Amino acid sequence: MSGNTFGTIFKLTTFGESHGEAIGAVIDGCPPNIPLTPNVIQNELDRRKPGQSKFVTQRKEQDIVQIISGVFEGKTTGTPIGLIIQNQDQKSKDYENIKDKFRPGHADYTYQKKYGIRDYRGGGRASARETAMRVAGGAVAKRILSMLDVDISAGVVQIGHITAEKVSTSEASKNEFNFVDSKKIPDLETFFNQLLKEQDSVGAKILVRISGLMPGIGSPVFSKLDAELAKAMMSVNAVKAVEVGSGTGVVNMKGSQNRDLMAADGFLSNNSGGILGGISNGEDIDIFVSLKPTSSISQKTTTVDKNNEEVDLQVKGRHDPCVGLRAAPILEAMAAMCLLDQVLLDKGQCFNVDRNS
Amino acid sequence: MSGNTFGTIFKLTTFGESHGEAIGAVIDGCPPNIPLTPNVIQNELDRRKPGQSKFVTQRKEQDIVQIISGVFEGKTTGTPIGLIIQNQDQKSKDYENIKDKFRPGHADYTYQKKYGIRDYRGGGRASARETAMRVAGGAVAKRILSMLDVDISAGVVQIGHITAEKVSTSEASKNEFNFVDSKKIPDLETFFNQLLKEQDSVGAKILVRISGLMPGIGSPVFSKLDAELAKAMMSVNAVKAVEVGSGTGVVNMKGSQNRDLMAADGFLSNNSGGILGGISNGEDIDIFVSLKPTSSISQKTTTVDKNNEEVDLQVKGRHDPCVGLRAAPILEAMAAMCLLDQVLLDKGQCFNVDRNS
Amino acid sequence: MSGNTFGTIFKLTTFGESHGEAIGAVIDGCPPNIPLTPNVIQNELDRRKPGQSKFVTQRKEQDIVQIISGVFEGKTTGTPIGLIIQNQDQKSKDYENIKDKFRPGHADYTYQKKYGIRDYRGGGRASARETAMRVAGGAVAKRILSMLDVDISAGVVQIGHITAEKVSTSEASKNEFNFVDSKKIPDLETFFNQLLKEQDSVGAKILVRISGLMPGIGSPVFSKLDAELAKAMMSVNAVKAVEVGSGTGVVNMKGSQNRDLMAADGFLSNNSGGILGGISNGEDIDIFVSLKPTSSISQKTTTVDKNNEEVDLQVKGRHDPCVGLRAAPILEAMAAMCLLDQVLLDKGQCFNVDRNS
Amino acid sequence: MSGNTFGTIFKLTTFGESHGEAIGAVIDGCPPNIPLTPNVIQNELDRRKPGQSKFVTQRKEQDIVQIISGVFEGKTTGTPIGLIIQNQDQKSKDYENIKDKFRPGHADYTYQKKYGIRDYRGGGRASARETAMRVAGGAVAKRILSMLDVDISAGVVQIGHITAEKVSTSEASKNEFNFVDSKKIPDLETFFNQLLKEQDSVGAKILVRISGLMPGIGSPVFSKLDAELAKAMMSVNAVKAVEVGSGTGVVNMKGSQNRDLMAADGFLSNNSGGILGGISNGEDIDIFVSLKPTSSISQKTTTVDKNNEEVDLQVKGRHDPCVGLRAAPILEAMAAMCLLDQVLLDKGQCFNVDRNS
Repeated sequence: MSGNTFGTIFKLTTFGESHGEAIGAVIDGCPPNIPLTPNVIQNELDRRKPGQSKFVTQRKEQDIVQIISGVFEGKTTGTPIGLIIQNQDQKSKDYENIKDKFRPGHADYTYQKKYGIRDYRGGGRASARETAMRVAGGAVAKRILSMLDVDISAGVVQIGHITAEKVSTSEASKNEFNFVDSKKIPDLETFFNQLLKEQDSVGAKILVRISGLMPGIGSPVFSKLDAELAKAMMSVNAVKAVEVGSGTGVVNMKGSQNRDLMAADGFLSNNSGGILGGISNGEDIDIFVSLKPTSSISQKTTTVDKNNEEVDLQVKGRHDPCVGLRAAPILEAMAAMCLLDQVLLDKGQCFNVDRNS
Repeated sequence: MSGNTFGTIFKLTTFGESHGEAIGAVIDGCPPNIPLTPNVIQNELDRRKPGQSKFVTQRKEQDIVQIISGVFEGKTTGTPIGLIIQNQDQKSKDYENIKDKFRPGHADYTYQKKYGIRDYRGGGRASARETAMRVAGGAVAKRILSMLDVDISAGVVQIGHITAEKVSTSEASKNEFNFVDSKKIPDLETFFNQLLKEQDSVGAKILVRISGLMPGIGSPVFSKLDAELAKAMMSVNAVKAVEVGSGTGVVNMKGSQNRDLMAADGFLSNNSGGILGGISNGEDIDIFVSLKPTSSISQKTTTVDKNNEEVDLQVKGRHDPCVGLRAAPILEAMAAMCLLDQVLLDKGQCFNVDRNS
Repeated sequence: MSGNTFGTIFKLTTFGESHGEAIGAVIDGCPPNIPLTPNVIQNELDRRKPGQSKFVTQRKEQDIVQIISGVFEGKTTGTPIGLIIQNQDQKSKDYENIKDKFRPGHADYTYQKKYGIRDYRGGGRASARETAMRVAGGAVAKRILSMLDVDISAGVVQIGHITAEKVSTSEASKNEFNFVDSKKIPDLETFFNQLLKEQDSVGAKILVRISGLMPGIGSPVFSKLDAELAKAMMSVNAVKAVEVGSGTGVVNMKGSQNRDLMAADGFLSNNSGGILGGISNGEDIDIFVSLKPTSSISQKTTTVDKNNEEVDLQVKGRHDPCVGLRAAPILEAMAAMCLLDQVLLDKGQCFNVDRNS
Repeated sequence: MSGNTFGTIFKLTTFGESHGEAIGAVIDGCPPNIPLTPNVIQNELDRRKPGQSKFVTQRKEQDIVQIISGVFEGKTTGTPIGLIIQNQDQKSKDYENIKDKFRPGHADYTYQKKYGIRDYRGGGRASARETAMRVAGGAVAKRILSMLDVDISAGVVQIGHITAEKVSTSEASKNEFNFVDSKKIPDLETFFNQLLKEQDSVGAKILVRISGLMPGIGSPVFSKLDAELAKAMMSVNAVKAVEVGSGTGVVNMKGSQNRDLMAADGFLSNNSGGILGGISNGEDIDIFVSLKPTSSISQKTTTVDKNNEEVDLQVKGRHDPCVGLRAAPILEAMAAMCLLDQVLLDKGQCFNVDRNS
């Protein structure tokens, strides 16, 4: 399709550009009778908000979400939920200097080639601002999944050469790096201070963990649960790799070591990352997502413009030195929507399967 | 959906179990007037065939594809192309010994949980035999892409601890490991002889490379080209990780190093792997796919059965010590179908864009 | 899409041409654990078979359906059900005389224009033979619906100027006109004998009635239950009109007369045809479908060929004087698949709605 | 799906309730570089506006559409077009009296049954107010189709017993009944004055005519062009029948009379309504749509409430005595979106077909 809708039964459609009047979304196929207030969504949006530490962009975005439809007397009605966030500062400041230039690492060039036209203000539709609406959609999905005892959490496990030794996603929310191993915070502070000084950026790896999912969710063959999750994750800006369970580590593993044995009280290991043959096996689903370093850094560089002339470029503004720090709520949201959709599809096709026997 | 269809305009639907009467597929949405003979498909199928070296499974599969419909006087008609491969030995031999047991690393347990019933003969629908029909569909897609000057090739870049130093996908077809660096063949032979002796298996990493694709292909936001490719790759049995361009390597890269600069004669590097903002940029698209070691090895083990009783298990038969060796044509096929579909979608929505200006 | 798939969760994909090797279908998304034998399908296919009276075509088609996959030990497994019917006489006899001519009322001209190529043998993909696979898919859907106490039946209510006075779909199977009012049989015999003499054909109107469907099925707005049923019916060859409940009769009705009043024991009338706002209301769903007269009649005529030259044309063979007589099982099948899909979608999105309270 | 999205490449998703804060829509998949101002949409919306004659509802709706995204410097960018219309009077007046009662002919009962909850204010999501966004989406589709020389127009051909003798859709916009035969205006005035006096309503039949469409558009089998158009039309509130070309008239036609003969300068008649085998043949596409009389009339009646108690009901407010009078722009919009989508799909799959040869 044309790319702005995600899901089959539970579907999110988003719209809006970075510097347009507003960004918005429609959630169609939401189960009815789910208690929902703007706060449920706002809380997740606030987790993504910039300016919460000196290591993320200092842009001010006071994103206030409005529910336009689909909720009546505090409950979802099963009809489409319309969501809007007004853009605070929609006047396009001086973009004259980058209007015709292609910023390296961005979608400027490819949008121009695809459509023959592009909204150059702040990256237009390709801006990470679009992900706010994913977080909003994910908040609703998480609300429903929590009623089914499914929990989704995420945290950073690696930044540059600094790797977590102990992984606890609940630890992540306690520090400004959203890092799963709090012992590494001093190292990270030193590293980031250096980064800021160098006007450079760095990549990160995030673990997204789904707990409490019953076995049997997912569809075989082309729509394997891991395939759908891989698409969901890879669709987030800056993501360059998606790994399930042991991930790239399987390349250097033996079968005797990798295959997870089963005993009467469950699986003895979880190299599979909770998915076998594209269907959940009841273990934690572990997805590792690698995000590239922010392409917009303050260092001067050269590039080309629409006429293919080489030109100087300096991207102004204060950017995130590591987009990974704010990625957790976005990745959780995508995982939540993907999963809920699969759960609802399963309730459709397999309505007559009794899983408790 | 229910998972057995791939694509939007160019769509492949597959059916059939490992030990059923036949496996088959329907290609819908194929452009008309494309010259197509069974040979075009058979040639790709033969690349996937087992028994071609002592390092792959010695099972005999004489897969002969039949075109049932959609081709008239040697050309596609635009109507659905029906494909059938008869299963040679569809009689289920003695599966009594594993009928109720869940083989570790396989989908036995999860299919049972999802559907409450499963065809246990040779893995049923979850068998890698299903991928033959992907190869068939991909052969048609590759045929059309080649008319658009797009080339897709794949080869193994890492097996266990042995990593290619020089990457040339054209080298891959020349050796029995499908390896991109022929200097490593002696090491691989030693390694595999040891594996066979240990009755064990090992993982592999494959590079899938798409060359010649024009800029502008792919859809933004949820259906980014890399997101669709990630789904396509992750949907193949045994795949546990998908990386684009620099992949997981971006975690330890700086922005100044990772963002690909542009000059008048093109991009100066290709860390992005040919995709920016979900749209092709005209460079090679490089996808790295990690496959787990074969779960079926001859070593004895324990597992549980349908009654959750612990039982002994020994999986008989000769299995591939490394499924990665035969994965290249499957991954190429998935990439080809994914790409062609995106090309056709682009020709739909953006019919009025002149990309040559 | 490309048109050969019907449904969202319960999906039928068909393939095959009138004079190709075989016709076939894939049912994806079928609920598991449903008892299914070839006979369940064959019985419905036999209802559509030609040659059962002197008033239908005397072509011999010994259609034997084969289940290729998706059924194990007599039950559906939830994986795709592959179906094949070999074409008995696939050798294309002498089609030289119509090869380049466009038969009036047929799709010869439009297929040629769309695809630039067509399989001219017996109408190729546009042949009514394609509907056999709809009947097969519908047989499976009806099997499942009957387990949910939903019944679907159809019968002819009008042929030419002869209109049923009493409507009983159970009456239809008792006469060779599939007519719902047996008192009209003598009139119909006279009329058809005259038709055969004139080498002409006539149209028909069919009632498709769905009984026992619970209220609450269907989706609002664009996918209203009547909208989906209208698409399902109109997709059948020769259908030119679809009416729900009072149908075109509403044009000359007053609101006071048309709106169905409700009392404690239910609706007092059923002008709505069982659907309000696109959702079932628990009453019988009544769909009236008008089919055009067979376009292939033995009378000589003129037409044009591929070079737009005017040419004589006489279509050989014995054709149905009224395609409506054999349409009931096809229309029932489409209604059944459409409904089952909506039931499964409802079980997905509205899994948490208790309809008995 | 969940019903609030229409189309495959060119897709409209709508949201909003009659008395919520706003109604809105997202158009995804719109071709880029199309000149588009709010006026293009507003002009179509104004055609649907109530209060334009004494024979339509006197409600005031000052619907002003806002384009939120997807348009830059007066042209579409290929990214989603977000549209919003604020509801003027979103405060729910006194709906206490109908809050728990099911109005006959409306979706109150079925929404309650489906979702277990409903927004009872003004019909909520089931209100005809939803169709405003279809008109908005259709305005964009018509804009693009007009660039391809396709014209879509509609007019009323029958109201009650009054039938047009001469059909000219261009005549329709000249009178307040939107009637295609101006000679019947005096009869209609007399009829409507009587209706108003009786506090009753009446049905209508509309002709939707598509001119200038090239042959070859549409997809065979399940997605026949007439099947897709039937769904599009039947999805509009109050529609109970859809006829193509000779429509229900075919039931009493002979094949010799119904099949449209071809000569060197084209078809000699148009009983088919411009579609053969689901694909356009280059003739006018004629669709006849029958709408039921408005269910909300001022006459007192009885009904049941949520507890299935019989209660009195009088629906207040001034309603349209004939919803058909304002239906033309809505039906044109649905036809336009349906057609454009099929045109874009055709440009995708059949990109390599040269139709001029």
